[in-house]
Amino acid sequence: MDSMTVIAVVSIITAGLTIAIGSIGPALGEGRAVAIALSSLAQQPDASATITRTLFVGLAMIESVAIYCFVVSMILLFANPFWNYAITQITGK
Amino acid sequence: MDSMTVIAVVSIITAGLTIAIGSIGPALGEGRAVAIALSSLAQQPDASATITRTLFVGLAMIESVAIYCFVVSMILLFANPFWNYAITQITGK
Amino acid sequence: MDSMTVIAVVSIITAGLTIAIGSIGPALGEGRAVAIALSSLAQQPDASATITRTLFVGLAMIESVAIYCFVVSMILLFANPFWNYAITQITGK
Amino acid sequence: MDSMTVIAVVSIITAGLTIAIGSIGPALGEGRAVAIALSSLAQQPDASATITRTLFVGLAMIESVAIYCFVVSMILLFANPFWNYAITQITGK
Amino acid sequence: MDSMTVIAVVSIITAGLTIAIGSIGPALGEGRAVAIALSSLAQQPDASATITRTLFVGLAMIESVAIYCFVVSMILLFANPFWNYAITQITGK
Amino acid sequence: MDSMTVIAVVSIITAGLTIAIGSIGPALGEGRAVAIALSSLAQQPDASATITRTLFVGLAMIESVAIYCFVVSMILLFANPFWNYAITQITGK
Amino acid sequence: MDSMTVIAVVSIITAGLTIAIGSIGPALGEGRAVAIALSSLAQQPDASATITRTLFVGLAMIESVAIYCFVVSMILLFANPFWNYAITQITGK
Amino acid sequence: MDSMTVIAVVSIITAGLTIAIGSIGPALGEGRAVAIALSSLAQQPDASATITRTLFVGLAMIESVAIYCFVVSMILLFANPFWNYAITQITGK
Amino acid sequence: MDSMTVIAVVSIITAGLTIAIGSIGPALGEGRAVAIALSSLAQQPDASATITRTLFVGLAMIESVAIYCFVVSMILLFANPFWNYAITQITGK
Amino acid sequence: MDSMTVIAVVSIITAGLTIAIGSIGPALGEGRAVAIALSSLAQQPDASATITRTLFVGLAMIESVAIYCFVVSMILLFANPFWNYAITQITGK
Amino acid sequence: MDSMTVIAVVSIITAGLTIAIGSIGPALGEGRAVAIALSSLAQQPDASATITRTLFVGLAMIESVAIYCFVVSMILLFANPFWNYAITQITGK
Amino acid sequence: MDSMTVIAVVSIITAGLTIAIGSIGPALGEGRAVAIALSSLAQQPDASATITRTLFVGLAMIESVAIYCFVVSMILLFANPFWNYAITQITGK
Amino acid sequence: MDSMTVIAVVSIITAGLTIAIGSIGPALGEGRAVAIALSSLAQQPDASATITRTLFVGLAMIESVAIYCFVVSMILLFANPFWNYAITQITGK
Amino acid sequence: MDSMTVIAVVSIITAGLTIAIGSIGPALGEGRAVAIALSSLAQQPDASATITRTLFVGLAMIESVAIYCFVVSMILLFANPFWNYAITQITGK
Repeated sequence: MDSMTVIAVVSIITAGLTIAIGSIGPALGEGRAVAIALSSLAQQPDASATITRTLFVGLAMIESVAIYCFVVSMILLFANPFWNYAITQITGK
Repeated sequence: MDSMTVIAVVSIITAGLTIAIGSIGPALGEGRAVAIALSSLAQQPDASATITRTLFVGLAMIESVAIYCFVVSMILLFANPFWNYAITQITGK
Repeated sequence: MDSMTVIAVVSIITAGLTIAIGSIGPALGEGRAVAIALSSLAQQPDASATITRTLFVGLAMIESVAIYCFVVSMILLFANPFWNYAITQITGK
Repeated sequence: MDSMTVIAVVSIITAGLTIAIGSIGPALGEGRAVAIALSSLAQQPDASATITRTLFVGLAMIESVAIYCFVVSMILLFANPFWNYAITQITGK
Repeated sequence: MDSMTVIAVVSIITAGLTIAIGSIGPALGEGRAVAIALSSLAQQPDASATITRTLFVGLAMIESVAIYCFVVSMILLFANPFWNYAITQITGK
Repeated sequence: MDSMTVIAVVSIITAGLTIAIGSIGPALGEGRAVAIALSSLAQQPDASATITRTLFVGLAMIESVAIYCFVVSMILLFANPFWNYAITQITGK
Repeated sequence: MDSMTVIAVVSIITAGLTIAIGSIGPALGEGRAVAIALSSLAQQPDASATITRTLFVGLAMIESVAIYCFVVSMILLFANPFWNYAITQITGK
Repeated sequence: MDSMTVIAVVSIITAGLTIAIGSIGPALGEGRAVAIALSSLAQQPDASATITRTLFVGLAMIESVAIYCFVVSMILLFANPFWNYAITQITGK
Repeated sequence: MDSMTVIAVVSIITAGLTIAIGSIGPALGEGRAVAIALSSLAQQPDASATITRTLFVGLAMIESVAIYCFVVSMILLFANPFWNYAITQITGK
Repeated sequence: MDSMTVIAVVSIITAGLTIAIGSIGPALGEGRAVAIALSSLAQQPDASATITRTLFVGLAMIESVAIYCFVVSMILLFANPFWNYAITQITGK
Repeated sequence: MDSMTVIAVVSIITAGLTIAIGSIGPALGEGRAVAIALSSLAQQPDASATITRTLFVGLAMIESVAIYCFVVSMILLFANPFWNYAITQITGK
Repeated sequence: MDSMTVIAVVSIITAGLTIAIGSIGPALGEGRAVAIALSSLAQQPDASATITRTLFVGLAMIESVAIYCFVVSMILLFANPFWNYAITQITGK
Repeated sequence: MDSMTVIAVVSIITAGLTIAIGSIGPALGEGRAVAIALSSLAQQPDASATITRTLFVGLAMIESVAIYCFVVSMILLFANPFWNYAITQITGK
Repeated sequence: MDSMTVIAVVSIITAGLTIAIGSIGPALGEGRAVAIALSSLAQQPDASATITRTLFVGLAMIESVAIYCFVVSMILLFANPFWNYAITQITGK
């Protein structure tokens, strides 16, 4: 296998695993947060404004961790600096 | 194995594993959220409008993490940049 | 092993593992949701309409994650783009 | 090992593992659902009609995940597209 | 090792592992269901008819998952399509 | 290693692992069922007839899963179809 | 390594692992059953006859799973059909 | 490595692992049983005779599982049938 | 594979795994914190100012751990000192 | 590596791992038993004689499992039958 | 691969894994601490000064463990003594 | 690698792993025992003499398991019978 | 790879893993301690002096375990006796 | 790799892993003990003298397990008997 193929192969595997593994934590964390939010709403319906607002800020914070993984995954697929360098090397030759 | 085969093989494996591993977290998280939603409905039927609305927003948020995985999986199968580059190389030759 | 065999082998393994691993999360999540739904019904039989409706929407949402895995598994078996490309290469030659 | 043997071997292993791993989630999920159903029946015998009906719909939903795995397992054993292609190749030669 | 031996070996291993791994989920699920059934009987002896009937339907449903595994295991040992094909190849030669 | 040895070796390993792994689930499940049965007896001694009867039916059901594993293990040791075929091949030669 | 040694080696390893792994489930299950039995005795000393009888039947049932493993382990050490066949082959030569 | 050494090496490893792995389950099970026994004694000091008797029968039952492992471990070290056979082969030569 | 390729490959894999593994802890931790925050808001709506402020400081602290991982991941992709050194070596030659 | 070295190496590794793995179960079991004993003493100081006596018998029983491991470990280091046999072979030559 | 490349590769992998693995513990620990802090604030709003102060000292203490990992990770990337030594060797030659 | 080096290497690894793995169980067990002891002291300060005495006997018993591991670890480092035998062999030559 | 490189590589990996793995336990332990401290402060604000003092002594004790790991990690990077010996060998030559 | 390097490499790895793995148990155990101590102090401030004293004795006991690991780790780095023997061999030559 030449260098180009190796980099391509490794980028594919890493892009997939990064978002796959990286989705476990945020999904479980968000599930927990939503679950308790609902249980709190049932317990104290009057505080629904505060609860919903805090929930959405919190979800956004947790989602940001999943988005870090998605960003790295997309960078590896579409803006991979090592792949670009390799292409430049070949076409520049 | 030539480069084309290696990239194809790796894309198949990664596409499958990404959605398989990536489905564990969201499914468990959504199950938890739905479960508590039902238990909250039984406890406070009067707040069913707020609970249902918050539940669906939360589920959509969690589902989005699964969809990141599905998107990466589909990209690897049908819009794989490395596969396209390799095809271009071969047909362009 | 020639390229065709390698792609076939990898597609078989990945198709099986994708649906096998991908069934763990949704099955557990749905089991949890159904369980709490039943417990809520026993606690508040009057809210059975709301509970049942919310349960079925939630189950459909969780099932969708399992269906993503099933779709990828079926694509790999019956509409595999890399396999089709390889066949085209051979028959076109 | 020739290609036919490799595909046969891989299909056997994958068929077995798919249904084996795929049975863990649904079995545990159904066990949980049945368990809570019984506990709900004991708590509220008057709601037995609703509880039993919801239980059976839920069990069918969870069972469907196990059946996806069984279907893939059977396809690999008795309607394997890659095996059929390989047979066609040999007999057609 | 010739092809026949490889297929035999793989069938033996897979048959054993399929039923072994596939027995964990159903056994735990049934244990849970039976346990809660008994606890419900003690709590509400008057509902014993409904509880016992629901329990047996539920157990049959869970057992069906174990039976899928047993069926695949038996198919691999006594009605293995790939083994039969290989025998036909040899005796037909 | 000739074919006979390989099949013998694999049958020994699989027979042992099948019953070993296959005993974990049923043993834990039965332990749980027995434990709750005893706790129910202490709570409601008057229902001991119903509880004991349900317990024994449930235990038999769970034990059946362990027996599937034992059956496969015994088949592999004493009625192994692949071993018998290999013997027939050799003695028939 | 000749065939005899391989079979001997594999039988030793499998015999040990079978009883070792196979002892985890029954030991934990029995521990749980005994523990709850004692707690039930303390709660309802008057039902000690029924509790003790049910406990011993249950323990025997769980122990039977451990005995399956022990039987397979002993068969592998002292009545191994594949070892006997190999011996017969050698001495018969 | 000659056959004798291989058998010796494998017997040593298996003997150690058998008792090591086989001690986890019984030790945890006994710890649980003793713990609940003490808690029951504190709750109902008058039933101490029944509790202590049941505890010791139960402990003996659990210990028997550990002893199965110890027996297999000792057989492998001091009464190993395969080692004895190998010695007979060599000295008989 | 030459040195450049090896460094590129290793940087890609490490960048992906670092953010993927590193997202599990913070996501779960934040999920827990948000969940309890909501439950506390429902319990004591009057303290919502203090709770929300403490929550955001805490979330920032936990997020900082995820950001350490993201920083290392970005450094490996875009400011990798070993890659820069290797480039300097090559271009300087 | 000659036979002596292999046996020595394997004995060292097995002796260490046997006692290391074998200490996990008993230590946790004893910790649990001691913990509940103390909690029972605080609950019912009058039963301290019975509790302490039962605790020590129970601890001795659990410790016996750890001692099985220690015995096997010491046998492997200082009374290893296979090592002794090998020495006899060499010195007897 | 020459020595320089090996050291670079190993430093990259270790730097990433150190901060990735090292972030799991602190993130979970801080999440737990923040969660209980919020729940305590809701329970006893009057003690908010003491609780907040103790929380921040505790968080700093836990964060310090994550910072140890970050420091080692940065040292490996930017002040690696083994890399510096190797550079000195090469340039000094 | 000559025999001496192999034995030295294996002794070092085993000595370290034995005490490392062997410290997990006792440390957790002692932590649990101490924790419950403190909680019992707070519940029943009058029984502090009995509780403290029982605690120290119990801790000593658990510590003894850790000491078995430490003893084996020290034997392997400073009184290793296989190493001594090897030295004797060399110096005796 | 020459000896120097091997020692450097191994020191880098071990230094990173030591602090990474070694941070899991202390971080979780400190998180638990801080969490319960806060909950105790809310329950008994009057005892805040004693609680805070005991907490800080306890945290220092737990931190000391993390510091053992950090010390070993730093020794491996900056005061590695084996590396120093190797340098001395080379420069002394 | 010559013998010296192998011993050095193995000592480095083992020293790091010993303290890293060995820190998990004590840190968690101490965290639990400290946590319950604080909760007991809040429950019974009058018994603070007894609780604190018992806590420190218990922590010292648990810390001793961590110190066993640290001692073995330091012995491997700075007083390694096998390394010393090897040095003596070389310098003595």
